[in-house]
Amino acid sequence: MSFNFELLHQEKETAARVGKITTVHGEIETPIFMPVGTQATVKSMTPEELWEIGSQIILANTYHLYLRPGSKLIAEAGGLHEFMHWDGPILTDSGGFQVFSLSDLNEITEEGVYFRSHLDGSKHFISPEISMEIQRDLGSDIVMAFDECPPHPADYDYLAKSLEMTIRWAERCKKEMQDTEQALFGIVQGGVYRDLRKASVEALLDIGFPGYAIGGLSVGEKKEEMLEVLDFTVPVMPEDKPRYLMGVGTPEDLLEGVKRGIDMFDCVLPTRIARHGAVFTSHGRITVRNAEYARDFTPLDDECDCYVCQNYTRGYIRHLIKRNEILGARLTTYHNLYFLINLMEEMRDAIQRDRFMEFYRKFYQKYKI
Amino acid sequence: MSFNFELLHQEKETAARVGKITTVHGEIETPIFMPVGTQATVKSMTPEELWEIGSQIILANTYHLYLRPGSKLIAEAGGLHEFMHWDGPILTDSGGFQVFSLSDLNEITEEGVYFRSHLDGSKHFISPEISMEIQRDLGSDIVMAFDECPPHPADYDYLAKSLEMTIRWAERCKKEMQDTEQALFGIVQGGVYRDLRKASVEALLDIGFPGYAIGGLSVGEKKEEMLEVLDFTVPVMPEDKPRYLMGVGTPEDLLEGVKRGIDMFDCVLPTRIARHGAVFTSHGRITVRNAEYARDFTPLDDECDCYVCQNYTRGYIRHLIKRNEILGARLTTYHNLYFLINLMEEMRDAIQRDRFMEFYRKFYQKYKI
Repeated sequence: MSFNFELLHQEKETAARVGKITTVHGEIETPIFMPVGTQATVKSMTPEELWEIGSQIILANTYHLYLRPGSKLIAEAGGLHEFMHWDGPILTDSGGFQVFSLSDLNEITEEGVYFRSHLDGSKHFISPEISMEIQRDLGSDIVMAFDECPPHPADYDYLAKSLEMTIRWAERCKKEMQDTEQALFGIVQGGVYRDLRKASVEALLDIGFPGYAIGGLSVGEKKEEMLEVLDFTVPVMPEDKPRYLMGVGTPEDLLEGVKRGIDMFDCVLPTRIARHGAVFTSHGRITVRNAEYARDFTPLDDECDCYVCQNYTRGYIRHLIKRNEILGARLTTYHNLYFLINLMEEMRDAIQRDRFMEFYRKFYQKYKI
Repeated sequence: MSFNFELLHQEKETAARVGKITTVHGEIETPIFMPVGTQATVKSMTPEELWEIGSQIILANTYHLYLRPGSKLIAEAGGLHEFMHWDGPILTDSGGFQVFSLSDLNEITEEGVYFRSHLDGSKHFISPEISMEIQRDLGSDIVMAFDECPPHPADYDYLAKSLEMTIRWAERCKKEMQDTEQALFGIVQGGVYRDLRKASVEALLDIGFPGYAIGGLSVGEKKEEMLEVLDFTVPVMPEDKPRYLMGVGTPEDLLEGVKRGIDMFDCVLPTRIARHGAVFTSHGRITVRNAEYARDFTPLDDECDCYVCQNYTRGYIRHLIKRNEILGARLTTYHNLYFLINLMEEMRDAIQRDRFMEFYRKFYQKYKI
């Protein structure tokens, strides 16, 4: 068995839970935050630094890697692990989200999607089969099904129709991935509609996957809407399979997701805001790039024990960011990823002790949104 | 005694020599290449990585730090070592070279230089006394005298006059730095003229400094001219003091300089070309950014044992550089600095064994310029 999920502890008071995913490239303790390495690199970080901060799995983007440097080139290099010198687990998305959000979309057909590259306008076609082929070339441990990602807001009828095709696509993905050690996750769609989300889960369960993701959130809907979708979707998802909330999120989103029974998260937020000089602290987010920090010779977060907070000051990091120095982006990125990964570790610990809500309340007492 | 230079071995066949500099922040084996940390950061590198590759001393730029974030702010932070989290030796230049090359020069007077910042056009004045004050605020271990840096080519009469003022400025610098543990180096000027270089050395010797630099080279003159200047200048410099060739250079420049008795070098070249995707190898310089390396899954340099060459391929690094990924600049910078620092270590070893010319010939057999 190359892929396995074991539920280790179900918290008493909430839906929060601790589990363990086993992959060919190692184990992952859940709930987990996955740093995003869009172009076969978690921006500014070496793999050794990712290990150092406790990363257990990273994400890479099929769409970007298919376009540049090309998935065949990566296959020639021996796959993504070898290419990027990361020998831990990797999850690749299907390319769907980027095809629908980044590229010039030409046509969506039952067969697949015609689009033009956002880089050079070249014409491309991705189908469920082609997405699986690309992800096979990349050699990721967890592979995502190719789905249609409708824009938000989308009307009920459009979503219902889209959902049906996404289910047929999920079947085609599974068929393509029969003889592989890569674990294919299905993606629950259905916008903010309870019955569509439920129908989506049921149809995916009929096909059967080793894990299930919730897609189509964090795309512009209100925070309450997102939490409501989690409230009615997670309970109909199977207990014995990992649940992955795609593209989320902020420290507070991670707390809310874990509370509702989510096991896996990914988001570009911590690395993206880092490059603009914004960092998480125990007391909320600050923009260390601002003038008020020029003479602040304290750490980014006085409660953080990461390499950056042990060795550098806000004043120095502000100077680096203002001068566009690479080290500035390195230090803020390192700290932000550490902050989220450490937050997940603390949550896992609280869940194990059946103290999740105590942790949750203490977090919000300090952390100002 | 806070600063000391000990000549450990004079090679038999050439002027090459091995020595040891002692500073408050540690010892430096010479000949040495000093990575340049213009804005209180060696671009893309952490201090830990600088130690890892064998850096023994780094350079920082007075002009840049005076303008941003300000030398008073750095003094408030506890000095440059504390500010940037580097507790090894630091050499700061005087700001002279940048005032003359980067800023809008307004007026050169006996008192000092009026100029406008290249960043925002603001008006400034730097004199020998002010340069010393800035470098005191920075708290560097080795401080450079404030000199006029004439453009190349400059006519003999201009250079002769400039030299006289630079000597008077050197006296003023020394007067300012009487009561400090920082070691003030004098700078030999005189362009490509033998008698001016000799007069410059003699005048500086009369004042007396713990080390002497050769300035005004690598500013556009021909390579043969630079080597000729070294050929007639180094022999009139004292044996018992370190000799620093400013702003040089390439691997071949380091070889030629060491052969002629130079002890210290600095240059932005290895870090600057790295960010454009060019790297040193045992066989010469290559531009790994080029298309020919897209499918080259061998290390940057197959004879190099640095972290980058042990773990990454040309194809991956080319991908990173093409996509403007920070990790690309990190890996090429790390390798290039390692290459030069390791080259110096190999030269020190060859000198100790009185085998410098053997090493020199072997280097050029492989390394194509």
